[in-house]
Amino acid sequence: MKEFNFINNFHRMTGIGWSKSEGVNRLALNKYDLLARSDLEKQLGTLNAAIKHDDAGNIYGSLCEGRKETISIGSHMDSVPNGGRYDGFYGVVSALQVLRAYSNTNLKKALTLIDFTNEEGSRFQPSLLGSGLATEAFKKEFVYSRMDDQNHTFESVLEQSGFLGSSDNRIKAQNPDYYLELHIEQGPVLEQDGVSIGIPKGIVTLIVDRYLFEGESNQAGPTPMGSRKDALVGASRFVSGVREMAKNRGPDLVMTVGKIQNMPNAYNVIPGKVSLNLDIRSPDKTTAEEYSEIAKELSKHIANEEGLSVSQEKLWVTETTIFDEDLTTEIEKACKSLGFNYKFIYSWPGHDAQYMNRITRTAMIMIPSHNGRSHTKEEFSSDEDMIKGLKVLEKTVESIMR
Amino acid sequence: MKEFNFINNFHRMTGIGWSKSEGVNRLALNKYDLLARSDLEKQLGTLNAAIKHDDAGNIYGSLCEGRKETISIGSHMDSVPNGGRYDGFYGVVSALQVLRAYSNTNLKKALTLIDFTNEEGSRFQPSLLGSGLATEAFKKEFVYSRMDDQNHTFESVLEQSGFLGSSDNRIKAQNPDYYLELHIEQGPVLEQDGVSIGIPKGIVTLIVDRYLFEGESNQAGPTPMGSRKDALVGASRFVSGVREMAKNRGPDLVMTVGKIQNMPNAYNVIPGKVSLNLDIRSPDKTTAEEYSEIAKELSKHIANEEGLSVSQEKLWVTETTIFDEDLTTEIEKACKSLGFNYKFIYSWPGHDAQYMNRITRTAMIMIPSHNGRSHTKEEFSSDEDMIKGLKVLEKTVESIMR
Repeated sequence: MKEFNFINNFHRMTGIGWSKSEGVNRLALNKYDLLARSDLEKQLGTLNAAIKHDDAGNIYGSLCEGRKETISIGSHMDSVPNGGRYDGFYGVVSALQVLRAYSNTNLKKALTLIDFTNEEGSRFQPSLLGSGLATEAFKKEFVYSRMDDQNHTFESVLEQSGFLGSSDNRIKAQNPDYYLELHIEQGPVLEQDGVSIGIPKGIVTLIVDRYLFEGESNQAGPTPMGSRKDALVGASRFVSGVREMAKNRGPDLVMTVGKIQNMPNAYNVIPGKVSLNLDIRSPDKTTAEEYSEIAKELSKHIANEEGLSVSQEKLWVTETTIFDEDLTTEIEKACKSLGFNYKFIYSWPGHDAQYMNRITRTAMIMIPSHNGRSHTKEEFSSDEDMIKGLKVLEKTVESIMR
Repeated sequence: MKEFNFINNFHRMTGIGWSKSEGVNRLALNKYDLLARSDLEKQLGTLNAAIKHDDAGNIYGSLCEGRKETISIGSHMDSVPNGGRYDGFYGVVSALQVLRAYSNTNLKKALTLIDFTNEEGSRFQPSLLGSGLATEAFKKEFVYSRMDDQNHTFESVLEQSGFLGSSDNRIKAQNPDYYLELHIEQGPVLEQDGVSIGIPKGIVTLIVDRYLFEGESNQAGPTPMGSRKDALVGASRFVSGVREMAKNRGPDLVMTVGKIQNMPNAYNVIPGKVSLNLDIRSPDKTTAEEYSEIAKELSKHIANEEGLSVSQEKLWVTETTIFDEDLTTEIEKACKSLGFNYKFIYSWPGHDAQYMNRITRTAMIMIPSHNGRSHTKEEFSSDEDMIKGLKVLEKTVESIMR
């Protein structure tokens, strides 16, 4: 019965902000995110959980608050534009299910569900704003001044949302003993390897470099090919160049240009400026940094050949996150006792767990993503895999609850 | 004194919608275009010209209306976004100057200035909407249904502008005997060759093909390089590939990707779809068509290698325009008698003259563009060159007025 409810609840809740043609558009604190938050709090209420918000709008729902020790579990409910149903939401609904199992029970440790605000960084950049403030990795002034595409600050949107709470409620102030996050893999590896559970050793280093190629914007027709300083040609050579570079390196590196802006972007005008973001990830920070430099050299080489100027700006660099070994061992034990095959992996996307890892013993549990699709409406994990992941989470909480 | 007024008038009028940092933003029928139109009509009024509008909002100012023969001269006052001061406007202010010279004179032929609506195609696509309707190259339904970025139809914008007139006033109905257009070159050739006047033999063929590359949108981090179907990588290879192709061909072909849209365009998402426009121009239509096909083959080859799908759609194909030989000979004679060096060239951008060429004897006169810059705030032609161009126009009108 419990499993049946969980799956139903998941599919019902993830319908908030979903359409078949558009996928999920539950951007942080938009109307759909607010609906999902209300739904979550309503359910937390039926479990007699104590509900609090902090000054990032993160939602906490706690059983047996005030115990000496606290186990926190959570994820996020916001999505990217045209995103999928599973990313983040799976972890929150699973955490809710764990609380459901323990509701009205006298627990040895407090059990706290967390829904983090603006994990995706799609509405407000950067990502992980909620966990960043709750763990005090980010300053409040920084978080509050972030702006969305409509030039609304995070502060003004949060104030209007009804989810603004006190800084006293930040998870860091609660000094938790554990944080667990259940999430879809968002990559193809677990499915390809026929493995049910991925246990991340940590989260890879992420470097984001912004490039600006500048040439000369001219009417397309009358400018001979040899007289052009076409910023888009330069940027294009760079995009395919970094791809080759990363492909040749092997499996410990990915490099992606996901965002590009071409100016003035008219069919009959030679592009004068192109900005783009290069996303570099590796479990080894040195490798990521090395390729950031090699890419920069490539950009200069191309700019030189094309008569362009180019500049590189470091948007952010994260350290490689190494999760708590004892806690990952507990997860491994849970898999073994349940008879689920598993694999140690790295998480290639960032997660709230990376900031939680700074303040408490932290680990993650991952389940396969069909065809590795994520951040798209095609994102899919089977009910069977979701239940397996939930069981591993439940078993791990059970073992650390003692 | 006449020259002094002309230059002053030019610099004053081209200040409408101009800012130093942004260039000219006088998009068709926007507030700046409307200001420029009012200014033009005020001046036409002082010359006792008969002012009319047609159903594309084109402005006609005529001296000695009703004569058996008509000489029309004109260009356009709308600009691209962040455009330059000279493109189009130079031809209109020059035409006005010619009318000024003949005002209150008993002319053998009617003399009609035309300001064409939406030449640029920046607000409403395609370009040349006004001359297209006035010459009946386009159907009214087509022209009226064009939409701008704010989803306003051409029809609704024209209605509100105050410049909507009768279809009876279309230039085609007036059956003119000549059309002359004075314009900046918008390319570097005349300046590089040290020539004051370019006499276009015609306007090159323009083919615009729209491409759509489709791959798989996935989270950037967890998708290994080898498992990706990155639409932007495919599009990038195409952009640099067509540039190589055109560069290797030689001076009778240009190919440009000026417009590109990357989806979903988030730094941490592998691009799933990229659309782009390929602009192909050549004085020889067969060459343009041949390269349109070669580019299509290249796109298929790249898509195949990258695991993408690609489609090509023909947005438009123009015929090579060949201007009236007698009229270009008159322009040549004018240059000779004035002692200005000149060169026969092709116009690589499209102009209203290409539709006018379908209904009457048409030719153009071009002056150097400094560094070939155009469609940018850096667009510049010297006062001296502008006066030379005006003199050639005046001389040519004088000779055909007999």
